[in-house]
Amino acid sequence: MFPVNLIEKFEQIHEYWSPKIVGSLNGQLVKLVKFKGPFTWHHHEQEDELFYVVKGAFVMEMRDKNLPIREGEFYIVPKGVEHRPNAEQEVWVMLFEPDGTLNTGNVENDFTKSILETL
Amino acid sequence: MFPVNLIEKFEQIHEYWSPKIVGSLNGQLVKLVKFKGPFTWHHHEQEDELFYVVKGAFVMEMRDKNLPIREGEFYIVPKGVEHRPNAEQEVWVMLFEPDGTLNTGNVENDFTKSILETL
Repeated sequence: MFPVNLIEKFEQIHEYWSPKIVGSLNGQLVKLVKFKGPFTWHHHEQEDELFYVVKGAFVMEMRDKNLPIREGEFYIVPKGVEHRPNAEQEVWVMLFEPDGTLNTGNVENDFTKSILETL
Repeated sequence: MFPVNLIEKFEQIHEYWSPKIVGSLNGQLVKLVKFKGPFTWHHHEQEDELFYVVKGAFVMEMRDKNLPIREGEFYIVPKGVEHRPNAEQEVWVMLFEPDGTLNTGNVENDFTKSILETL
């Protein structure tokens, strides 16, 4: 195992909303994803989800508030809370969540990625 | 809950080798810690441990190799693997690990922090 350089990994990602696995520990996965535009409203029944902004910024839309998440910040969306990431510009995000977490949670649509590549 | 700004949190940390809790999800904790100098050799019986370098660099010493971990990189030390972080200069590190992980693992000495402050 070697150290994982986030920038080098992000440079290998060429599509939006397609999380790539870059680490695994204690039943949790570390994923990298590029956002642009609005995602789909969804929630996760069982999983809390951490979003850490490596580059850029986005808005975490929730039913009761919109929270800007800026570079160098993280935010944890608790399980059960409906949310929709929305990025005006491209943003690079590191996710930390349990193995098996589906990107669109309770929803299945064109955004859904059931099988994730490992970088 | 608000977004957590890592730099703002690190600026509140004034001692080395004293992890502070900044997030909790799925039975895991997010901790911030400043390293300087050599830590103590130890391992964790049950827990994998992720080290992400926010600022600076350090060397992860293991029995079979020494790995430099640079700014923007993370490294996962698997459970059972003896390790000793060693930082020539001050380094800011974000940790992901299970709730209950003791900083010195199987060892108890002056570095041991059994009770962690939440920032």
